[in-house]
Amino acid sequence: MENNTRHEEFMRMAIALSVQNVTESIGGPFGAIIVKDGEFVAGSANKVTSSNDPTAHAEVSAIRLACKELNTFDLSGCVVYTSCEPCPMCLGAIYWARIETIYYANTKVDAENIGFSDKFIYDELDKPMEKRTLPVVQMMRDEAMEAFKLWGNSAMRIDY
Amino acid sequence: MENNTRHEEFMRMAIALSVQNVTESIGGPFGAIIVKDGEFVAGSANKVTSSNDPTAHAEVSAIRLACKELNTFDLSGCVVYTSCEPCPMCLGAIYWARIETIYYANTKVDAENIGFSDKFIYDELDKPMEKRTLPVVQMMRDEAMEAFKLWGNSAMRIDY
Repeated sequence: MENNTRHEEFMRMAIALSVQNVTESIGGPFGAIIVKDGEFVAGSANKVTSSNDPTAHAEVSAIRLACKELNTFDLSGCVVYTSCEPCPMCLGAIYWARIETIYYANTKVDAENIGFSDKFIYDELDKPMEKRTLPVVQMMRDEAMEAFKLWGNSAMRIDY
Repeated sequence: MENNTRHEEFMRMAIALSVQNVTESIGGPFGAIIVKDGEFVAGSANKVTSSNDPTAHAEVSAIRLACKELNTFDLSGCVVYTSCEPCPMCLGAIYWARIETIYYANTKVDAENIGFSDKFIYDELDKPMEKRTLPVVQMMRDEAMEAFKLWGNSAMRIDY
């Protein structure tokens, strides 16, 4: 790290969001901050229960806000500071958003120790599909391929 | 499957959304439908580029809509029909939402063949953190644990 002080400043903001979220009874103890070129872009705590949205983890929420702020679906050049190691959903979102570095504090095992499913979901993804607890059934691939063929031939498509 | 006709009807709805999304140039060739007790709850196509939201995959968007419709963050008793195997972000969202079965059509390899990163992200998650292309740095765990301790002791918390 070329500049530890800035890194600590941003992580401290993410941690402050995580603490405030519990003390104000808004949601889980998680906060995340998106930074571009050393400047704050957006931040959010976890809002799953207060917004009735199971996808509203801190990182996903911060990514959505940052994209709104920067008017793009591509956060190349951005980094994320998150108070806890991202779960598979948030890690996937970070990849799709093209965020370039993840700084995190608590681990998925720490999260498991206070009752969260992060590690369970990681363990599920490590298994082959047919060994997971969640049943998965494939059907109708031939019909569904139509949209993929259309996409391949579309001159209007916006890749992402 | 106890009732193949209903399953095919719902999957056909998901596929129709995926096709329409390309023909109307709204987003990627993906559609998803949430069903509870044999009844349609919500459906969405992929809206990443049209809404500037990299998390707005079909499944995540359908989950958000279904939660709004049912006024809950818990989709226990629901199943999802998705025109393509969920990516890690969407699979994580499906676990967090407590959806009970996944029906899918196209595969992550089919998605890769038309230029999408689903399989790449699955391959990344299969690697230990330090071998991934996306740098991950841990810092300040001691400070971040404060929120976890507060959560553990909170009488006001809503578990999820």
